[in-house]
Amino acid sequence: MIQVGVLGAQGKVGRAICAAVAAADDLDLVAEVDAGDRIETLVESGAEVVVDFTHPDVVMGNLEFLVSHGIHAVVGTTGFDEERLARAREWLTAQPGVGVLIAPNFAIGAVLTMRFAAQAARFYDSVEIVELHHPQKADAPSGTAYRTAAMIAQARAAVGRAPSPDATTTELAGARGADVAGVRVHSVRLAGLVAHEEVLFGTAGETLTIRHDSMDRTSFVPGVLLAVRGVADRVGLTVGIEPLLDL
Amino acid sequence: MIQVGVLGAQGKVGRAICAAVAAADDLDLVAEVDAGDRIETLVESGAEVVVDFTHPDVVMGNLEFLVSHGIHAVVGTTGFDEERLARAREWLTAQPGVGVLIAPNFAIGAVLTMRFAAQAARFYDSVEIVELHHPQKADAPSGTAYRTAAMIAQARAAVGRAPSPDATTTELAGARGADVAGVRVHSVRLAGLVAHEEVLFGTAGETLTIRHDSMDRTSFVPGVLLAVRGVADRVGLTVGIEPLLDL
Amino acid sequence: MIQVGVLGAQGKVGRAICAAVAAADDLDLVAEVDAGDRIETLVESGAEVVVDFTHPDVVMGNLEFLVSHGIHAVVGTTGFDEERLARAREWLTAQPGVGVLIAPNFAIGAVLTMRFAAQAARFYDSVEIVELHHPQKADAPSGTAYRTAAMIAQARAAVGRAPSPDATTTELAGARGADVAGVRVHSVRLAGLVAHEEVLFGTAGETLTIRHDSMDRTSFVPGVLLAVRGVADRVGLTVGIEPLLDL
Amino acid sequence: MIQVGVLGAQGKVGRAICAAVAAADDLDLVAEVDAGDRIETLVESGAEVVVDFTHPDVVMGNLEFLVSHGIHAVVGTTGFDEERLARAREWLTAQPGVGVLIAPNFAIGAVLTMRFAAQAARFYDSVEIVELHHPQKADAPSGTAYRTAAMIAQARAAVGRAPSPDATTTELAGARGADVAGVRVHSVRLAGLVAHEEVLFGTAGETLTIRHDSMDRTSFVPGVLLAVRGVADRVGLTVGIEPLLDL
Repeated sequence: MIQVGVLGAQGKVGRAICAAVAAADDLDLVAEVDAGDRIETLVESGAEVVVDFTHPDVVMGNLEFLVSHGIHAVVGTTGFDEERLARAREWLTAQPGVGVLIAPNFAIGAVLTMRFAAQAARFYDSVEIVELHHPQKADAPSGTAYRTAAMIAQARAAVGRAPSPDATTTELAGARGADVAGVRVHSVRLAGLVAHEEVLFGTAGETLTIRHDSMDRTSFVPGVLLAVRGVADRVGLTVGIEPLLDL
Repeated sequence: MIQVGVLGAQGKVGRAICAAVAAADDLDLVAEVDAGDRIETLVESGAEVVVDFTHPDVVMGNLEFLVSHGIHAVVGTTGFDEERLARAREWLTAQPGVGVLIAPNFAIGAVLTMRFAAQAARFYDSVEIVELHHPQKADAPSGTAYRTAAMIAQARAAVGRAPSPDATTTELAGARGADVAGVRVHSVRLAGLVAHEEVLFGTAGETLTIRHDSMDRTSFVPGVLLAVRGVADRVGLTVGIEPLLDL
Repeated sequence: MIQVGVLGAQGKVGRAICAAVAAADDLDLVAEVDAGDRIETLVESGAEVVVDFTHPDVVMGNLEFLVSHGIHAVVGTTGFDEERLARAREWLTAQPGVGVLIAPNFAIGAVLTMRFAAQAARFYDSVEIVELHHPQKADAPSGTAYRTAAMIAQARAAVGRAPSPDATTTELAGARGADVAGVRVHSVRLAGLVAHEEVLFGTAGETLTIRHDSMDRTSFVPGVLLAVRGVADRVGLTVGIEPLLDL
Repeated sequence: MIQVGVLGAQGKVGRAICAAVAAADDLDLVAEVDAGDRIETLVESGAEVVVDFTHPDVVMGNLEFLVSHGIHAVVGTTGFDEERLARAREWLTAQPGVGVLIAPNFAIGAVLTMRFAAQAARFYDSVEIVELHHPQKADAPSGTAYRTAAMIAQARAAVGRAPSPDATTTELAGARGADVAGVRVHSVRLAGLVAHEEVLFGTAGETLTIRHDSMDRTSFVPGVLLAVRGVADRVGLTVGIEPLLDL
């Protein structure tokens, strides 16, 4: 029986996770913490693993607290760039028995999208990403898009691919999207949407599109539970749930 | 028999237009001009209507030349903003018998996309545009996307719609696209593509998408011929081919 | 205050409608009937308008009961073909003060999709429909797809369009979809989906796609309430909510 | 220098292949045969490898001729089911030094689509295929769709997946598509399209879509040349170009 706490417990994702943890036979929901609550509750409740779905503004403080108190963390909050990951690794160096899993997306479809994108990357001249989310999302691009772009960039660099061709000479600011590791990323925010990502590859005469649609926040739950069960066995920092799958 | 000249005659679109003009029973191809050629050839050849598919950098010079010489113009070159349209109107004031038709897109599907987008605009909370083109395109966003955004903005203003909701607080520069009249526009440039536009509308629980795919530059031809035949009867400035259709 | 009953009140759509009727200031929810309940409850409760979201197997019996008892009906159950509509018209002839509105889809986006499809139909050589739904759906194609196909067929006939070109000589049964008024319709059933329709138009070198995604059953609610409020003023049979909109 | 013949040399694909073979330094175009020509020309010209892009009605006769004359074959003609593949294997048993490569699609994107589809198949409850082609295509479903469905079915069977859920009780004939190895396949034929395939996977709350768009028949060329160069080293029957890639 793993003792589990949830940070961001009153958010939409947080509530779904609390419900799923409470329903799982091998997990025990011991603390639900949200903005305004005392974070010390997590320690007092005996939580061994804490799930964090909060906000880019507060997640670093949460994570430092958890690691320093020897609590394993499963983090779904977005906004992790290289600098933030480096800080997390630093904290973990001082706590060698603690495991932290930070994933930009826990949906299996998102992970498959990234994996396939990385595999396809070396065959195409051009690649761009369009990610689409509900308009309440705070950050753009999404964490998933950042990671997808990074994986694509790495695969292209490995085979010495030139940058995607682009003859733009007249651009209205922002039209060509954000540059993430040399990959253009476009963030659409639209009422009615939930969480979607489309990776477009192109070469002469053909294109390949890989698209993931997450229509319901509960699609994150199986991946989060998988991480909660596996994080204690993976000390140090793990990025993404892919290492937990058998691909 | 209308005497027709073509500017940008050696470009891919220009060549398709020259072939179509030459093949039409009621049109006479009298001049083919490209970069490096003398533009005066158009006057000397007796061209009554000139089609211009050149480049944003040279089209204003071409247009001023045509209007000042009393030649009607059909312009498919992109990059026309309000300031450029205003200058064209000014030149036409001095030449009351001349007609100029500037269209960001001559494909019937593009015109229908704009029309439907304008009709749908008042029913939805959110709207964004994604336009996708081959990587040799010089301008971003495309002229079609500019015009689509303007038509949507006008329809939303007419019913007093609030701006599309957007809670972004952390943005990597460019991720949220370009702002055209309050509508976010994203420009994808990808090998293998030709010319595509997608307009996305959303409200609680549903989205509506209108997408036009132009897979072949010859899809522009019927609209261009329609304009060549009709421009002399429409003195002054006409924007878009929609007025020539029976919608 | 309109007295409203709901048939199929325990279904997912039915529950959403009951909640919305109960929440509306001008509507009074007086009866909730489902399979196993006595349908006479609707008469006894004084319902003036009854909303029916049940099943193709029982809806005709329900409708005959409602019309014969002088109760206006708003019907969202699918499976209405010309023969069923004819029977409904017959029953209404004997009850001249009663209004029945049967709509294959109450989402505004679905109505706009049909409208735009009808407008575009005359410009394209080819047209096909792909409709995609959750795998619990009982009928294929969807009622919306039937109606969209009928509207497209009518628009094409009006301008004398030939059938969509199709050189298929070797077909595995079913591959080319169902033939609805000369329009091929393909029904996808997939876990994770809700209700989606895509209309594809094509001519040489270009295609136009109109797609409606309904991600949440509550997207039906505004259209249903609109119909409940308007059905008593439209005696006889009305098909679709479009006549209630100001298009 | 490989001596290459082409069957179906006057078709659109055939002409592109002839041009590419003629342009390649290591290939020698020695025979171009089409309907009405004597097939014996291929033997007389000394062709070592023959590429066949003809028609399902004649390809079996062509193939038997080639194998029996000891000529290696690269076949892009569609319509190969298990029975036809079995016959090809039989012919090859009698000619142990001959290699035949039959591929439903030579575009790298099509191969990646199949590969990714097979990898994703075990994670999803539902799967369906929509393939879309120009209206001159003779067979439905496409050979690529047949093969994709077979690969998906195999991957699902390997992990003991139940059939895709489907509650359809009322179906207009053909609406639910063709059944290929338990996978529903829908074939759209539309003017303006070239060759496209979309594989849709779904589970609770999320979907994954893999789509390949071939906009230009020249996208087949690199895969065909790869096969021409490699077929002599692979005696017996090879299905698909994937074994020739380094995936």
